[in-house]
Amino acid sequence: MIKHYQIGPRMAQAVVYGGLVHIAGQVADNRKAGIAEQTRDVLAKIDSLLAEAGTDKSKLVAVNVFLPQIGDFDAMNEVYDAWIDPKSPPARACVEARLADPDLRIEITAIAAAPPGA
Amino acid sequence: MIKHYQIGPRMAQAVVYGGLVHIAGQVADNRKAGIAEQTRDVLAKIDSLLAEAGTDKSKLVAVNVFLPQIGDFDAMNEVYDAWIDPKSPPARACVEARLADPDLRIEITAIAAAPPGA
Amino acid sequence: MIKHYQIGPRMAQAVVYGGLVHIAGQVADNRKAGIAEQTRDVLAKIDSLLAEAGTDKSKLVAVNVFLPQIGDFDAMNEVYDAWIDPKSPPARACVEARLADPDLRIEITAIAAAPPGA
Repeated sequence: MIKHYQIGPRMAQAVVYGGLVHIAGQVADNRKAGIAEQTRDVLAKIDSLLAEAGTDKSKLVAVNVFLPQIGDFDAMNEVYDAWIDPKSPPARACVEARLADPDLRIEITAIAAAPPGA
Repeated sequence: MIKHYQIGPRMAQAVVYGGLVHIAGQVADNRKAGIAEQTRDVLAKIDSLLAEAGTDKSKLVAVNVFLPQIGDFDAMNEVYDAWIDPKSPPARACVEARLADPDLRIEITAIAAAPPGA
Repeated sequence: MIKHYQIGPRMAQAVVYGGLVHIAGQVADNRKAGIAEQTRDVLAKIDSLLAEAGTDKSKLVAVNVFLPQIGDFDAMNEVYDAWIDPKSPPARACVEARLADPDLRIEITAIAAAPPGA
C-alpha cells in the first residue's frame, strides 16, 4: 500500500512505500531570506514530514541538494552539517540547478527508512 | 532478481527490483516540438513503461522533472497536472538542467511501486 | 537496520537499507584530469563502494550522471558504455549541472541491489 502525506493537486509532499519515505523537493516559505535561513527552513520541513511519516533524520538514506548558485555551497553546508545526525548521515549529492522561483536559494529531496510496518 | 525492460547498450528504460520500478530519464521523440507536446510524449512513454512492468501512474512514488528552460515550468505543469492521478500523486522535484540534445525541452525520471511478486 | 559505509562529517559514501545500496555523489580525486579520466575515476570509486557493500555493477538499478559541461556527454559515454554490464544495465539519467568545485567534470550517484540479508 502506498501512503501519501500532504496531497496537493500536483504532488504529495511525502510518499511511503516499500519501507521507504520519499520526500518531495522542499523549498523555503520565506523566499526573500538568505541561504542560511532558507536551508534551515527546508530542513525543518523535512524534519516535520519525516515525523508525520513516523521516522526522523537519523533514518535518512539519501539526500539531493539543488542550489541555483553553487557559490552558496559552504553557507548551506554550515547549516546542513549541524543538522545531520553525525552517527547516521545519508548518502548525498549536491549540484547547481535553477529552481522554479528565481528567489529560491535551495531545494532538497530526501529518502528515509519508514517505520516498521509502514 | 532484477528485471530489465527495453535494454539498450547504455541503459535499460525500466529496471524492477525490490518492489520498485525505476524509469530511466525519458525524452521526447519529436525534438522540434514545443514544451506541451514534448511533455505529453514523455508522460506517454512513462505510461507505456509502467504498463510493461505491470503497474501504472497511480502507483508512482517519486518523479524528477528536468527542464533546460525553467520558464517552461507553467506550460509543463499544465500537461503534468492533468496527467497525474489526483488521488495518488507522487513526491516530485523539478529543477532546471540542460540536456544532452539542445532541442530537448524536458526529461523525466520516475519511481513506482511494482506489482506484487515483481 | 541502516548500514553506513565511509561515514564522514557530512555524508556516508554508501548507505544500505531495505535491500538497496545508495551511493553518494562520487567525484574524481584528480580534479585537473579530463572528462575520460575523471569518469574512469568515478566509476572505479563506485565499483569499490559496491564491493564494500557486497554487491557489484551488474546489480545496479539506477544511475544519475551530472556533467557541468553537457558537451562532455559523448566522451563520458565512451567510458561509461565500456564499463556498464551490457546484460544488466541500470536505468539512467544524465543532465547538465555545475558542481561544487569548478574543476570537477562529472558527478555520479547510483542505486544498486544489496546482497541478500543486507
